[in-house]
Amino acid sequence: MTTAQRPTGFGVDPRTANELKERYLQTRGFTERMCEPMEIEDYVIQSMPDVSPAKWHLAHTTWFFETFILSNNYPAYRPLNLQYNYLFNSYYNAIGEQFCRPRRGQISRPTVKEVYEYRAYVDEKMLDLIDKLDADDALDTIRDTVILGINHEQQHQELMTTDIKHVFSMNPLRPTLHVRPEDEPARGVPSHEWLRYEAGLYEIGYDGPEFHFDNESSRHKEYMEAYEIGSRLITNGEYIEFMNDGGYERPDLWLSLGWATVQEHSLKEHDWEKFDKPLYWFKTDDGWMQYTLAGPRPVNPDEPVVHVSYFEADAYSRWIGARLPSEAEWEIASADADAEGGNFSDNFTFHPRPLASDAPSGRIHQMFGDVWEWTTSAYRAYPGFQPWEGAAGEYNGKFMANQLVLRGGSCATPQNHIRPSYRNFFYAADKWQFMGFRLARDVE
Amino acid sequence: MTTAQRPTGFGVDPRTANELKERYLQTRGFTERMCEPMEIEDYVIQSMPDVSPAKWHLAHTTWFFETFILSNNYPAYRPLNLQYNYLFNSYYNAIGEQFCRPRRGQISRPTVKEVYEYRAYVDEKMLDLIDKLDADDALDTIRDTVILGINHEQQHQELMTTDIKHVFSMNPLRPTLHVRPEDEPARGVPSHEWLRYEAGLYEIGYDGPEFHFDNESSRHKEYMEAYEIGSRLITNGEYIEFMNDGGYERPDLWLSLGWATVQEHSLKEHDWEKFDKPLYWFKTDDGWMQYTLAGPRPVNPDEPVVHVSYFEADAYSRWIGARLPSEAEWEIASADADAEGGNFSDNFTFHPRPLASDAPSGRIHQMFGDVWEWTTSAYRAYPGFQPWEGAAGEYNGKFMANQLVLRGGSCATPQNHIRPSYRNFFYAADKWQFMGFRLARDVE
Amino acid sequence: MTTAQRPTGFGVDPRTANELKERYLQTRGFTERMCEPMEIEDYVIQSMPDVSPAKWHLAHTTWFFETFILSNNYPAYRPLNLQYNYLFNSYYNAIGEQFCRPRRGQISRPTVKEVYEYRAYVDEKMLDLIDKLDADDALDTIRDTVILGINHEQQHQELMTTDIKHVFSMNPLRPTLHVRPEDEPARGVPSHEWLRYEAGLYEIGYDGPEFHFDNESSRHKEYMEAYEIGSRLITNGEYIEFMNDGGYERPDLWLSLGWATVQEHSLKEHDWEKFDKPLYWFKTDDGWMQYTLAGPRPVNPDEPVVHVSYFEADAYSRWIGARLPSEAEWEIASADADAEGGNFSDNFTFHPRPLASDAPSGRIHQMFGDVWEWTTSAYRAYPGFQPWEGAAGEYNGKFMANQLVLRGGSCATPQNHIRPSYRNFFYAADKWQFMGFRLARDVE
Amino acid sequence: MTTAQRPTGFGVDPRTANELKERYLQTRGFTERMCEPMEIEDYVIQSMPDVSPAKWHLAHTTWFFETFILSNNYPAYRPLNLQYNYLFNSYYNAIGEQFCRPRRGQISRPTVKEVYEYRAYVDEKMLDLIDKLDADDALDTIRDTVILGINHEQQHQELMTTDIKHVFSMNPLRPTLHVRPEDEPARGVPSHEWLRYEAGLYEIGYDGPEFHFDNESSRHKEYMEAYEIGSRLITNGEYIEFMNDGGYERPDLWLSLGWATVQEHSLKEHDWEKFDKPLYWFKTDDGWMQYTLAGPRPVNPDEPVVHVSYFEADAYSRWIGARLPSEAEWEIASADADAEGGNFSDNFTFHPRPLASDAPSGRIHQMFGDVWEWTTSAYRAYPGFQPWEGAAGEYNGKFMANQLVLRGGSCATPQNHIRPSYRNFFYAADKWQFMGFRLARDVE
Repeated sequence: MTTAQRPTGFGVDPRTANELKERYLQTRGFTERMCEPMEIEDYVIQSMPDVSPAKWHLAHTTWFFETFILSNNYPAYRPLNLQYNYLFNSYYNAIGEQFCRPRRGQISRPTVKEVYEYRAYVDEKMLDLIDKLDADDALDTIRDTVILGINHEQQHQELMTTDIKHVFSMNPLRPTLHVRPEDEPARGVPSHEWLRYEAGLYEIGYDGPEFHFDNESSRHKEYMEAYEIGSRLITNGEYIEFMNDGGYERPDLWLSLGWATVQEHSLKEHDWEKFDKPLYWFKTDDGWMQYTLAGPRPVNPDEPVVHVSYFEADAYSRWIGARLPSEAEWEIASADADAEGGNFSDNFTFHPRPLASDAPSGRIHQMFGDVWEWTTSAYRAYPGFQPWEGAAGEYNGKFMANQLVLRGGSCATPQNHIRPSYRNFFYAADKWQFMGFRLARDVE
Repeated sequence: MTTAQRPTGFGVDPRTANELKERYLQTRGFTERMCEPMEIEDYVIQSMPDVSPAKWHLAHTTWFFETFILSNNYPAYRPLNLQYNYLFNSYYNAIGEQFCRPRRGQISRPTVKEVYEYRAYVDEKMLDLIDKLDADDALDTIRDTVILGINHEQQHQELMTTDIKHVFSMNPLRPTLHVRPEDEPARGVPSHEWLRYEAGLYEIGYDGPEFHFDNESSRHKEYMEAYEIGSRLITNGEYIEFMNDGGYERPDLWLSLGWATVQEHSLKEHDWEKFDKPLYWFKTDDGWMQYTLAGPRPVNPDEPVVHVSYFEADAYSRWIGARLPSEAEWEIASADADAEGGNFSDNFTFHPRPLASDAPSGRIHQMFGDVWEWTTSAYRAYPGFQPWEGAAGEYNGKFMANQLVLRGGSCATPQNHIRPSYRNFFYAADKWQFMGFRLARDVE
Repeated sequence: MTTAQRPTGFGVDPRTANELKERYLQTRGFTERMCEPMEIEDYVIQSMPDVSPAKWHLAHTTWFFETFILSNNYPAYRPLNLQYNYLFNSYYNAIGEQFCRPRRGQISRPTVKEVYEYRAYVDEKMLDLIDKLDADDALDTIRDTVILGINHEQQHQELMTTDIKHVFSMNPLRPTLHVRPEDEPARGVPSHEWLRYEAGLYEIGYDGPEFHFDNESSRHKEYMEAYEIGSRLITNGEYIEFMNDGGYERPDLWLSLGWATVQEHSLKEHDWEKFDKPLYWFKTDDGWMQYTLAGPRPVNPDEPVVHVSYFEADAYSRWIGARLPSEAEWEIASADADAEGGNFSDNFTFHPRPLASDAPSGRIHQMFGDVWEWTTSAYRAYPGFQPWEGAAGEYNGKFMANQLVLRGGSCATPQNHIRPSYRNFFYAADKWQFMGFRLARDVE
Repeated sequence: MTTAQRPTGFGVDPRTANELKERYLQTRGFTERMCEPMEIEDYVIQSMPDVSPAKWHLAHTTWFFETFILSNNYPAYRPLNLQYNYLFNSYYNAIGEQFCRPRRGQISRPTVKEVYEYRAYVDEKMLDLIDKLDADDALDTIRDTVILGINHEQQHQELMTTDIKHVFSMNPLRPTLHVRPEDEPARGVPSHEWLRYEAGLYEIGYDGPEFHFDNESSRHKEYMEAYEIGSRLITNGEYIEFMNDGGYERPDLWLSLGWATVQEHSLKEHDWEKFDKPLYWFKTDDGWMQYTLAGPRPVNPDEPVVHVSYFEADAYSRWIGARLPSEAEWEIASADADAEGGNFSDNFTFHPRPLASDAPSGRIHQMFGDVWEWTTSAYRAYPGFQPWEGAAGEYNGKFMANQLVLRGGSCATPQNHIRPSYRNFFYAADKWQFMGFRLARDVE
């Protein structure tokens, strides 16, 4: 279980002004390219409080550059619209009051056109500023914050994807956003193997020279008992076995809160509100279907199961006699995996894919891309954690309560955005992100 | 207090095929003309469960013609989209299942463009059908239902106005939809006079030859005690006196449910959610402002107060030592008033206007148009009430619980839609329609 | 359909001091006699916000005498506990702040023993005061208020009964409070007959010399169309036919709000929360059972159906092709009925009973006692209504919104408390009072 | 910072039949002695869903012995009442259905007297069974489960205390349950010192021979960075400084969920519902008061602050520039502390007490008793965690989501119930237990 070389395929930061502009433009452009198939009406909808309209994502990521860079650094910067600071601030109390989150879908203005104008306005100023500072040899004053803004926008690319998927799934017309070729017939995936890691002191967290979030440091030691981790993700086919075995009807398999969630949702009106299957699944006479951004598809047994909550992943694990990994267990194992070749947003598919039938035995697969993987680790500060200074300090630290860490990125994550030490976090009942899981177990 | 002649200004039904087509086209066209200043984004929003997106109104009124006329009468009629029957059915259980009302603002498709195509498709078929049936001398088979559909669309024109007003009012940008000239300075309105009606047997309800709703019949006798009714609507200036006198803080002035509403809303987060002023009012350093479809305006003391609930109208009445009229009292008095010259949607102003300073004394004013007037009458069946046959029987009768009757039409009602016997109905706490009130009192 | 003589069996007010003391003691004593079978624990429970603990009823009725009589009239009156004025004020804003209603079941102190001491303390002072004033020939200063207090306590006797029934029904042990002999076998009831009343001007409301509530006056004329009213109450057996015919599954039978109530409650967790049967019914292998204060009993098809809401009574009426009566229709017909021989709380049975099989044809039955009868009349002010002066003015008038009038008293009403003009009022969805109904219909 | 000897004052399990009976009787008797000052009414109330009526605690702890011991081991055991198994099962799905938790306060029967009879019935059988098995040399078959039942009852003793405190605090009469002498005047507490622990591998968890919960094992290694921990608990006086410095108004001090909790509760109706002070505090003209089981008392600045949530403890820590300890940090430090001399339920005071002014410097104080101490550790499985077999496996493991670990016991914990490895757990917003905190910080 050793690895001959450093894992590959992770992002490297831009250094020069030209690299920085290129990365900036590439990211900003990718966001807009993602929106190309959308109708104006699609940009406006908020289908639940957690979801933001695409229009809001487009504006909020722009507001981020305006607020954290232009307003402090661009000479005599004049905001395009003074109200935008209120409308598009997400949660930065240090910046000022915020427009009420659950009402983001209730404002028709600014229009989509005006939001694109806002983007163009800020982009022009940003490029100009980079050049200006570079000329003054002062690019360092903003370089890190620009890179943060780029990473921030990449996170919102993913949210925009998962949010529009939720929006479209509510619509009886079940529209297609991103066309995807027909699936190949299922032919089974390589068998699930247990990969062993020995007890000992390990190091966890980031300590390299590239961009990373404050919550990934400091790098620190953890003593691990020996454990085994699954060689691949759990598939739809495997999950259906759990369902067919009454997995959603046996309280002994569930955490107390999970079972309460199942019970409570069983009293909901609509089938899609029940907590008795992965989100976006629905049953037809021909079997299970699932809504995808390419429209409804039959559930492919070979694909990793996606849109399951922590409660469901945990219940499945108990049913099969295993458990989920901790984030440290996951991170240690990730040293044996590459991001390269992974299924990321770069390929514009936005759906997890089956593990290749010829994937080699004895190695760990599907660690990066496809689905975020639930871990048993509560999202909390690492030893020595220091939030960033200023308003950016609200980025991560203040969410360290009641959430669980997910690892590895998904089919909606850009490849150069992910890292082994990257910590995503959601609530145990959340399902609308591209969430799946792999197993772990103790070693006797 | 007698009237020399029949009140004038009320609608007359189209009889011939040409008249029918003209009225149909006029109504359908007026709806679309109302939407001209709207951006595509504006059509999509549902700012509270009672509100429907403009897009939905446009489609639902079209669905009404399709469902109740074309599908039964047009040879081999093929719906443009089979899902529309589910998406745009409002509440007709006899027609089939309905898309969940509070989620009307969560579907981006069909697009606005597709909805307009739907309208055009149905319009073409409707005109064609009228001609065909006329040629066969069979226009009578659909004439009444077409007129019902026209009146139905006129009701939705009003709802579309009040709904988009609610949508825009939520937006911190406070957009303007219908430009309106600056207000003239307030100069006071004619004094409030009491007009007396003697005790005796009166007749109430509709019995003429023109279109009317089932809930307006049968015409029947009511014995009335002598009463007096106010010569005009209560104004903003008068209502502000009530507010300044602590009207919203004195439980003795309120119905128990009304006071509970005030209390409960005092715990809401946003100022516009408090039940301590008319809807759309907000206070600035310069005094009270109100949001109108022409943007925010200072509250004009001469204008009739609008967007007040029954609870508020009732509390004001108790404060001033009077009461609200019953619907019979209102209808009897309406025999002395004309619709002609009233402030209706026809003038594209969508806001109540002050009573002219030279309005003659001893006569009743502002009965038709401006604001719907709250009455103390619970909305219930008249003696001998028979709901219409078939699904149209669900139009009115099934709402006869917990609602109160309002009379007289508003600035968002088309003039040819209103009648003295017309019964509108809303819940006692509702405020987002153009609702106001006049006073009445017993005679010793 | 004429009646040879005035209906009999209604209460007559006490006039002399001795009569007043006797009625006072009789009423206060009856309240306590009703509580004799209760355990201390039973006095404390509030099973839903509408329900008050028995302990609270005992104290609140005492507070009424203390507040409205002793504190104004008894020389140097000292309340037993100053906090009781806050704890046991129900809703009289003019008296001061009130302890939060839904938390009445959350305070264990004062204990039941202390509440009985409070009753004894106030009783002693009340009797003393009556004697004192009588000696001074000044009994008139309090006589009317004492009679109001007695009637108030009688109303709370009924509420105490319906509340403890609700409390006990929630308990899986289904305790018995008032033992009742086994039911006789069902043998059918006299057939339902239509009794006709002709069109014309009638007088409605109270105008006699005895006690009555402010909401019963002023007596006034109403013009009535001819109508027919049912000779007896609708029975369990008849109601079961409606249920068996899918009455709870057909939206066309229901008011829109009623159907929404059915739908909404179908998503509730417990069977007794569903809106698909009368309250307190439950199905066993042996058929329908109902919880009564004498424990669970098989549903007797001959008994009047009880614990149904307005929505259910209305739906049944529509199903059978009739309607419910208005309160005027009911009151006019009541002139042909006696209270004497009715099924009231006086007999300590607390359950409706079948109409005697030999009840004479052509006459109206079961008008007084057994069950309160739903009418279609919204609870609102009669012409010339004047609320009582002072805090007692909050007794009735402020509830005139969203409630419907019920008539005739029930098996939990004392006989001398009821009158033909008596107006009870509840919300359309309420079921926990002894509520039933009879039919009416228009005459062609 | 070394400790010369093993900490003392922790419980030792009973071994012989006599010891077992004695411990059983002592525990059962202590529960009942705690209830002596209660009135019957006090046993019935449930003031919020988290609270259970005292009556329920008395019965549930009895049900535990009946279900897990008597029904499996006592020859031909006959339950006193078959319904009790449903009524008094808390959450053991493996045992069967449970009576709905939020309705525990809605059932008046069984009465308190019947519950005590139930206790006596089970006690008699339990003592009999211990003797019988001892005679057969088979005491081992139940010994561990009896000890579990005893510990279970001790946990409910604490809950009964915190629940009745919540119940009484809701009552405007603010009753006294346990009389307590007047407080001595505040004279300040020893200064707060930082005690240092060095980085290294430590062992955490239980591995001794005495009773412990499944969640305390397995004992395992953790690598710790160097840290410092506070020598004593944070006091009321210190907490008031935080409040006076605007601690509840500065979002930068709060976790996002904590701030949302503050905001949301600021819209509640009653002062005691606001999240702007410790639970049970209220302000008077004379300053802060707090409700205690001995009635209201002025807030003593020397006492440890109690009834604060994790959110508040965390905000205070951030304000002062520190953080809370992890459970491992706490447990490591606890090796330097004794339980002996601590403030436990044994002294019948039920309120935290100030640290003695002569408490020696350089040592850690108040680790056991007084208040449960919040840690930053999410409640989750230790490596190698194995839930107990059978229904008892539901005791701990299924609650491992969204809760935080608290350590050390409180003034409502029996001394022989606590251990250094003991893990209590509650939600971050919970305040009604005796919860307080001490600080920790990283070492540079």
